[in-house]
Amino acid sequence: MKFSLTILGVNSAIPANGRVPTSQILQVQSEKFLIDCGEGCQIRMDQYGIGRSYINQIFLSHLHGDHLFGLPGLLYSFSLNRRKQALHLYAPQSELLRQMLLNLLSAQGELGFELVFHDAAASPGNVRLVFENELLSVHSFPLVHRVPTVGYLFREKQRPRNIIPEKISEYGLTVEQILEAKSGEQVRLPDGRALDPEELTLPPPEPRSYAYASDTMYSEDIVPVVAGVDLLYHEATFAHDLADYAAETMHSTARQAAEIALKARVKKLILGHYSSRYKELAPLLSEAKEVFPNTVLGEEGRVYEVPFRSARK
Amino acid sequence: MKFSLTILGVNSAIPANGRVPTSQILQVQSEKFLIDCGEGCQIRMDQYGIGRSYINQIFLSHLHGDHLFGLPGLLYSFSLNRRKQALHLYAPQSELLRQMLLNLLSAQGELGFELVFHDAAASPGNVRLVFENELLSVHSFPLVHRVPTVGYLFREKQRPRNIIPEKISEYGLTVEQILEAKSGEQVRLPDGRALDPEELTLPPPEPRSYAYASDTMYSEDIVPVVAGVDLLYHEATFAHDLADYAAETMHSTARQAAEIALKARVKKLILGHYSSRYKELAPLLSEAKEVFPNTVLGEEGRVYEVPFRSARK
Repeated sequence: MKFSLTILGVNSAIPANGRVPTSQILQVQSEKFLIDCGEGCQIRMDQYGIGRSYINQIFLSHLHGDHLFGLPGLLYSFSLNRRKQALHLYAPQSELLRQMLLNLLSAQGELGFELVFHDAAASPGNVRLVFENELLSVHSFPLVHRVPTVGYLFREKQRPRNIIPEKISEYGLTVEQILEAKSGEQVRLPDGRALDPEELTLPPPEPRSYAYASDTMYSEDIVPVVAGVDLLYHEATFAHDLADYAAETMHSTARQAAEIALKARVKKLILGHYSSRYKELAPLLSEAKEVFPNTVLGEEGRVYEVPFRSARK
Repeated sequence: MKFSLTILGVNSAIPANGRVPTSQILQVQSEKFLIDCGEGCQIRMDQYGIGRSYINQIFLSHLHGDHLFGLPGLLYSFSLNRRKQALHLYAPQSELLRQMLLNLLSAQGELGFELVFHDAAASPGNVRLVFENELLSVHSFPLVHRVPTVGYLFREKQRPRNIIPEKISEYGLTVEQILEAKSGEQVRLPDGRALDPEELTLPPPEPRSYAYASDTMYSEDIVPVVAGVDLLYHEATFAHDLADYAAETMHSTARQAAEIALKARVKKLILGHYSSRYKELAPLLSEAKEVFPNTVLGEEGRVYEVPFRSARK
């Protein structure tokens, strides 16, 4: 029941200091959700031994090159590997994305699989369901940047309650009765007794959640959207002494990322999208930890596992 | 008087086995000529500490993604670094390249510098001068691949003869006389004596040369074009047991690369553009060396210096 984030690229703008531009993979069970696709995405996947299969959904925050320019190569690889399955791309300005990609790929011959473009644009106050399957839902939400930009909120669906194995033999439960209990219904036994689901099952684990917010300037509008998530990745392009420059370029400082995390009471904050001026990242981490202690650096190749939290009673 | 090739990417098709798709830099004095620009080009430059400045010319062999998809990121970096100087791009299908790039870059705002597209298409029998400055000339020549593809021949210009310093004081030579002798003319002294240039100067070193041939199937048509070059980079996508598949996909085997090197009497052969199926490259090297002993593997990060050869008498 994997729910883990692997960071592939964590630099802003250009490859520098051994870091590459933004991309990451959220793995939920066997499915891999790719989030942004900066240059170097598949080079890191090769380096970290991450297969390209099981990627069927790619979520782009915006169309700036450092979140996008790994995509042509990835599509080309899928094509060379004779992919047949449709690939779904989510982005604001999805029609512009379509034109950019199809033009670029025109010289490469037929892709051999379908690209499906989904509009993920979200306006202020508008949180938008863009993807859903039996495991999780994905909502886009507006960020504040120089071009239309969205964040994404990944949230597991509520699981059914867990049957207590000993109860099956104790009461001679049928499959039907087990399913009733798991879905929270009363179970009636042949002798007329009614058993509450709490007697037969344990509560399910809390649904896990991950929110991605990059690129954006400081905006408290996202606080209610990301409130309480297990993991928040928030851009921290600059240290706070450059707060004015951050605002001017519509980016955030590490301290601002931590302020959002604090206000939203998230469980853990991951920093990223570092300016190339920072060879060493420790100062960014310290300033964020002063505000929000459970902050970690986003680091390429690092895997951030989200374990199940203790179940609700 | 540097003349050296640095290989940035040497894999074919996709990033695999720790290798990235094709790109390389020929450095001639301080000028860097970028040859192909596969994904990973500027990631390797960052990794190897190679600055992006002094790149004013980019030579593309063809428009397949594995020779091209590093270009958007590189242009984006130039733009972010506030490049002002025009950048010259040479390629077959240069108009198609222009459309692909401008469309892709349309979402990034103004580049801030001019892109100048030069048609480098070359048809059979047609070797074409595409660039020339005081140091060297670059010719494109046709290769045989699935889309219009060219190789490039870089050749230093003949330098003037070198004055022998002691002769200046011995004969009291003026600056004008020195220049006459260096350019191979007789020098007449005030006393009427005529001195042959061989008396006053040493012959200049041989112009150095590099030929790049990738992607291509085996074609002896390139032999006269690359004859005698100091360095030949020839693609060697497959080992020779896959010669049929190489022909079908219009690529070459390592042995075929060596046969071209042998027939063209080049000084040294560099193999590259390896198929992802080869994790270990030693077998490709061995089969090439059987035909042409002075063969080396193209390896990412390796610098191939071309020293001056002993001067012509």
